[in-house]
Amino acid sequence: MAAYAPYEFMRVTFPASHVAHVEINRASKLNAFSRPMWLEFGRVFRQLGGDADVRAVVLSGAGDRAFTAGLDVTAASTEGPLSGTGGEDLDPARRAKALRGHIEEFQECISDMERCEKPVICAMHGVALGLAVDIACCADIRLAASNTVLAVKEVNIGLAADVGTLARLPKIVGSTSWVKDVCLSARDFSAREALQVGFVSQVFEDKARTVQAALDMASRLAEKSPVAVQGTKELLNHARDNGTAAALRYTAVWNSVALQAGDLRSALTSVFSKKKPTFEKL
Amino acid sequence: MAAYAPYEFMRVTFPASHVAHVEINRASKLNAFSRPMWLEFGRVFRQLGGDADVRAVVLSGAGDRAFTAGLDVTAASTEGPLSGTGGEDLDPARRAKALRGHIEEFQECISDMERCEKPVICAMHGVALGLAVDIACCADIRLAASNTVLAVKEVNIGLAADVGTLARLPKIVGSTSWVKDVCLSARDFSAREALQVGFVSQVFEDKARTVQAALDMASRLAEKSPVAVQGTKELLNHARDNGTAAALRYTAVWNSVALQAGDLRSALTSVFSKKKPTFEKL
Amino acid sequence: MAAYAPYEFMRVTFPASHVAHVEINRASKLNAFSRPMWLEFGRVFRQLGGDADVRAVVLSGAGDRAFTAGLDVTAASTEGPLSGTGGEDLDPARRAKALRGHIEEFQECISDMERCEKPVICAMHGVALGLAVDIACCADIRLAASNTVLAVKEVNIGLAADVGTLARLPKIVGSTSWVKDVCLSARDFSAREALQVGFVSQVFEDKARTVQAALDMASRLAEKSPVAVQGTKELLNHARDNGTAAALRYTAVWNSVALQAGDLRSALTSVFSKKKPTFEKL
Amino acid sequence: MAAYAPYEFMRVTFPASHVAHVEINRASKLNAFSRPMWLEFGRVFRQLGGDADVRAVVLSGAGDRAFTAGLDVTAASTEGPLSGTGGEDLDPARRAKALRGHIEEFQECISDMERCEKPVICAMHGVALGLAVDIACCADIRLAASNTVLAVKEVNIGLAADVGTLARLPKIVGSTSWVKDVCLSARDFSAREALQVGFVSQVFEDKARTVQAALDMASRLAEKSPVAVQGTKELLNHARDNGTAAALRYTAVWNSVALQAGDLRSALTSVFSKKKPTFEKL
Amino acid sequence: MAAYAPYEFMRVTFPASHVAHVEINRASKLNAFSRPMWLEFGRVFRQLGGDADVRAVVLSGAGDRAFTAGLDVTAASTEGPLSGTGGEDLDPARRAKALRGHIEEFQECISDMERCEKPVICAMHGVALGLAVDIACCADIRLAASNTVLAVKEVNIGLAADVGTLARLPKIVGSTSWVKDVCLSARDFSAREALQVGFVSQVFEDKARTVQAALDMASRLAEKSPVAVQGTKELLNHARDNGTAAALRYTAVWNSVALQAGDLRSALTSVFSKKKPTFEKL
Amino acid sequence: MAAYAPYEFMRVTFPASHVAHVEINRASKLNAFSRPMWLEFGRVFRQLGGDADVRAVVLSGAGDRAFTAGLDVTAASTEGPLSGTGGEDLDPARRAKALRGHIEEFQECISDMERCEKPVICAMHGVALGLAVDIACCADIRLAASNTVLAVKEVNIGLAADVGTLARLPKIVGSTSWVKDVCLSARDFSAREALQVGFVSQVFEDKARTVQAALDMASRLAEKSPVAVQGTKELLNHARDNGTAAALRYTAVWNSVALQAGDLRSALTSVFSKKKPTFEKL
Repeated sequence: MAAYAPYEFMRVTFPASHVAHVEINRASKLNAFSRPMWLEFGRVFRQLGGDADVRAVVLSGAGDRAFTAGLDVTAASTEGPLSGTGGEDLDPARRAKALRGHIEEFQECISDMERCEKPVICAMHGVALGLAVDIACCADIRLAASNTVLAVKEVNIGLAADVGTLARLPKIVGSTSWVKDVCLSARDFSAREALQVGFVSQVFEDKARTVQAALDMASRLAEKSPVAVQGTKELLNHARDNGTAAALRYTAVWNSVALQAGDLRSALTSVFSKKKPTFEKL
Repeated sequence: MAAYAPYEFMRVTFPASHVAHVEINRASKLNAFSRPMWLEFGRVFRQLGGDADVRAVVLSGAGDRAFTAGLDVTAASTEGPLSGTGGEDLDPARRAKALRGHIEEFQECISDMERCEKPVICAMHGVALGLAVDIACCADIRLAASNTVLAVKEVNIGLAADVGTLARLPKIVGSTSWVKDVCLSARDFSAREALQVGFVSQVFEDKARTVQAALDMASRLAEKSPVAVQGTKELLNHARDNGTAAALRYTAVWNSVALQAGDLRSALTSVFSKKKPTFEKL
Repeated sequence: MAAYAPYEFMRVTFPASHVAHVEINRASKLNAFSRPMWLEFGRVFRQLGGDADVRAVVLSGAGDRAFTAGLDVTAASTEGPLSGTGGEDLDPARRAKALRGHIEEFQECISDMERCEKPVICAMHGVALGLAVDIACCADIRLAASNTVLAVKEVNIGLAADVGTLARLPKIVGSTSWVKDVCLSARDFSAREALQVGFVSQVFEDKARTVQAALDMASRLAEKSPVAVQGTKELLNHARDNGTAAALRYTAVWNSVALQAGDLRSALTSVFSKKKPTFEKL
Repeated sequence: MAAYAPYEFMRVTFPASHVAHVEINRASKLNAFSRPMWLEFGRVFRQLGGDADVRAVVLSGAGDRAFTAGLDVTAASTEGPLSGTGGEDLDPARRAKALRGHIEEFQECISDMERCEKPVICAMHGVALGLAVDIACCADIRLAASNTVLAVKEVNIGLAADVGTLARLPKIVGSTSWVKDVCLSARDFSAREALQVGFVSQVFEDKARTVQAALDMASRLAEKSPVAVQGTKELLNHARDNGTAAALRYTAVWNSVALQAGDLRSALTSVFSKKKPTFEKL
Repeated sequence: MAAYAPYEFMRVTFPASHVAHVEINRASKLNAFSRPMWLEFGRVFRQLGGDADVRAVVLSGAGDRAFTAGLDVTAASTEGPLSGTGGEDLDPARRAKALRGHIEEFQECISDMERCEKPVICAMHGVALGLAVDIACCADIRLAASNTVLAVKEVNIGLAADVGTLARLPKIVGSTSWVKDVCLSARDFSAREALQVGFVSQVFEDKARTVQAALDMASRLAEKSPVAVQGTKELLNHARDNGTAAALRYTAVWNSVALQAGDLRSALTSVFSKKKPTFEKL
Repeated sequence: MAAYAPYEFMRVTFPASHVAHVEINRASKLNAFSRPMWLEFGRVFRQLGGDADVRAVVLSGAGDRAFTAGLDVTAASTEGPLSGTGGEDLDPARRAKALRGHIEEFQECISDMERCEKPVICAMHGVALGLAVDIACCADIRLAASNTVLAVKEVNIGLAADVGTLARLPKIVGSTSWVKDVCLSARDFSAREALQVGFVSQVFEDKARTVQAALDMASRLAEKSPVAVQGTKELLNHARDNGTAAALRYTAVWNSVALQAGDLRSALTSVFSKKKPTFEKL
């Protein structure tokens, strides 16, 4: 745990065996993100991805009011690419290069959660705007408290969302009519609506119950073979971006070595013996 | 508005600021489409796409009974590729070339609505068969009156739908089991069922309320930054057909110039001042 | 019908005109699959695909208790790639080649149902675990009895599902959050839940009613133009794995010859005459 | 031929049976292109593509000195997107939309030659700079006179080539090291060098012999089955942009109707009888 | 060797350790292919692919005059899809289905050589027309005797080549101008020309020397680690049809198990000891 | 320059305005790579990519004997993934994860040169084996001294090349027959042969002249508009991995902002005035 102590905006705890809990930890500002925060966000998930003691991760927001209010707009409007300051002396092509650099760095940090090989469960509550949705799109499983208010807010500050929502949302929610409605209108939607369209898969009464449910689910995943669980995540992510034939071929190559793990035997034995199996680190 | 006067089968009005309303206007024939109509349909959306005064478009059908009954089968059975007349002297490969030409022209006209850079809201009511679904698939947001009866009717006239439904429906509705059911069986389905599976995102009591809701939604979109709205549409359409990495890269390039619009500043200012922003034409 | 007599584990009957009914027929073992069974499964669907008398297929499980319990784990744990026996003398790369061969053979057999050009309706009941979902993913339309218990069970025996579920499920169900939940947790889900997320499109009271509904649906499809029905299946499957522009182009080429069938005329005539059309074999 | 009379900058003649010869016809300006010219260029190839009397096309430049000097830079520097005038009042995002519109229109006109279903042989001589290469990339077969001087010149006027060279050249010439050398350096290269790297497939002594060779080749193609020739062009263009499996599948569908042409029988008969076959129009 | 005795048109010998030599064996007919021959052709390469004693394969034609004259046109013109007989009673769509079936079966048999996991060296001489090129495109390395006369002959019998040349040739030869020239014109080209454009990589004086060179090369490949050689073939074929990022990812997964073979250690030891390594079967 | 001082194995100098020269600097070991070296290699190119003073880069090897002998096999055989030590206690799936991590880290470092937005010219001489080719494949332009001896050597140490050669070589050299020959056989090939197949685009007498030619070429590129040069590199790299339509669309978006640079005007002015233009940093 000491390894995760230095983070300033991400509180990392280990509430159960092999389970990490990451909290976005700037409750005084509704967990709104400044650049140092998203740099930390990327770092923490790269570290968790490489930590053989971790088998499942829960992400939530600190405090009662917000998962995250998204981008810290006050900060963004005084410095950085959205401030409109800096680069006034550059022509549009040169400013574009700088802006592209900022966007790509930001995208990379958020995508680090998707690339983390351990399953990530996102537990949302309260305010969950803008960047909140970009982040949630990178989680594997999304849960929400009934008081969660979500929105793809970016259009309202004059821009198309560029940290991942527009790239991922059409592939993780079935109704394109709904996706375009919320992305074009920037309107709020409730946890209930998010459940109905399949953006989240369960809704709980309040924050406490949501986080607990996420931790329980993480514990159950952490008891299973990490070879099976991490392979399943990788193959599902690969399938999203590839045709069926390519996905089947990749699967066959992947499992040609995964099946040589000891986990298969341990799991099969436990099925017959009704005893809980144990698995080596991964 | 004069610019849109010459259309014979498309009535174009401007009921609100920056909002265009296109009505399929052949109520006496349940708005069924003949070839001159789909040629006009393409033209009107190309014109709207290039019209900097237009920021959102509503599409509906004239009259009480139908959004559109689809292809004008009577006309189609006496002339054109489905008539079985013309080309009897050609061998199958030469007829195929002619047929391919007809299909591609037809596809292009309907796709022109999808390519229109402004968001298009489709308000359906009553009869909405065959081509109605091809057209609705090209809209961004779909609304329906509770009396709407939809069907992917083509199988019943002996052909696989080729104007876009089979290419687009699997990507805009989540349940493939449902998609194949309605496409293979050609059975009717109601507005309610369309809502449940996510083909439409809202259902209203009757035609009047549906069209009004579409116009209200269009007005709200038209008040927002057109750079943000049109960029959002483009990026969502790009994401549908590209993998996640490609979509993120395209997004970064797109926004590297979009963020240089004045809209960002206007929108941010309005957020802090609580005043309504105004945006330049696009 | 004699042509289908030699199958040992697949019972094939023809309960209605142009309709084939395939039953997984090893009720004493909950229809669990051994290798000879999946080899037969592939063979029967290749034969049906090439049989011009067949226009629609229903797949169900024999007996009261199970659609299929999936892989016959007892058999698999004593011989074959999951047994952990055989190949101990090989290095991991050489074992991987053998395992890859096994996986690909297995994938091919199950995919043969997807490649069958006739529409396949899958009627599930009771136990439907593991391989049951891989198989159902290859059907066109999925129905279930209310007592069906489904699970993507593979993680529980220490492996990522490799016979198709992970490649196909994200493309046939809208909610990725739900897909990852059931694939990572291996938990059971009910017919009701399957309906809600769109994995199945209808639920019936019991097995008898489910199979009857599937047969009725198959009969209706079998009355339609086989050129239209089989083309629709092919174009929907192509669209799943290709971008919109490529799908439209493929559609135009496909229909440039399909429209030259007599079916169009027969179907149009029947529309006007209200008589039932008849269509040539395909 | 009268149908092709109205073109101002494109001279179209029919020097042999079924063979069209298009000359870029502004010799006084080294055949440099202004916007009206590229609009005409697109139109003439759309017309030829749909003209059943045409089976092969030759493209060359009028006059002794140039195939084409590319973009008319003088004109471009006083009006249009490269002039730097117009749009000064717009913010960069709004100017970008206008520029994108110009680029896409330009790309479309040049791509019309690639989309023309008849084979196009490009015969180059003398000056062949910038746009000359964009155009040549859209031809099927490239020939050159020994005095041809080519260059991907765009970098020298401060821009990346955007009318097709950068999109197509890496796929039609084998050596990427060479492609990047000429595209990044904007240096001249000779017909001889173009032959060596495979950009052109033959070099002739002078313009007259080059054009004659192109016309002879066109005549030979025009004597063959147009179903076979046009299908071959389509399938090769499809293969360039698709994987092998997709290309084989598309080929099978395409030929399933093409093989029903009478051409096969005519051609086979002529092989055995040693008589010249004749083929119907296409 | 006995295992390969029953082939009628394919002579299979084992002239060196781990090297198989397949001869197309119908010299009296210039090795022209009838349907039973291509069915055998597929079978022999499926068998070789699964034969752990085989590490490299040479393909050549029996007799002095021809590698293969391609399709047996005389046979094809009296029966089968090109005969124009059979199916006259079917409408074009139904004939198309039958034709598509024939084409796909033919494509599959030839593709079986590409799918064979062992490297295949194709040694051509004399007549090498039509199908000869389709076949050669599926080999890994192509050698030719100086008297080889090649042609993509299909256009001359009124059809676009559909057994693989048009799908593969643009990806295995650098100059598209040359590819289109030979495919559209059906003209002969020599071994020398094939070498110049890179279709073959070496030319030898006569058939004997070509076959010997192929066998020598095969022997050298057969001495190397089969894990390394077969992996290299697989990864190069995968790279042809996938983007760079996908190819790198697939490579990493593939080698994550291949590197666990004993071959690495054996090969490294032999590098240091200068002794010839031996490798286990694969 | 001080910024580049700390590198241990990469010597970075700035021999001309805006030109960086990177030398692989371990001549005593024939510039063979250990892990610290490839980590440095990635770092130096990330730094150059972000350095606005740099407009072109030359890469060469220090010393007389080698560009690089590739992987330091002695080091690799005592530690790291190829050593066969470490991980003996792990099952094959767990070792595979570790190996995959090593391969991906290695791939990333080498790919950093390809991702560097400035053009990179690779000047090879002497020994250029294994990793030398992986690296050269990531350069934009390849030059070689006449004494260069190249080989895709990996098969000879029992593995398929996994740091990029197999993913990239088929797309940067036209003849697949040659690519497979050298990759499967691991045989040496000369600078002359590399020129003939297009792997390098020029050969010079000796190392000194090769490096000088590369520096001269870099100087010429550095005098041009960096907006034009870097855009050209990006668009060519994008085109390699995308279809034509996608490449044209990306080009249009890219240039919609690039054309707003001042470079266009500076360059055009200089064309007319015959004076050398100057361009702002990028």
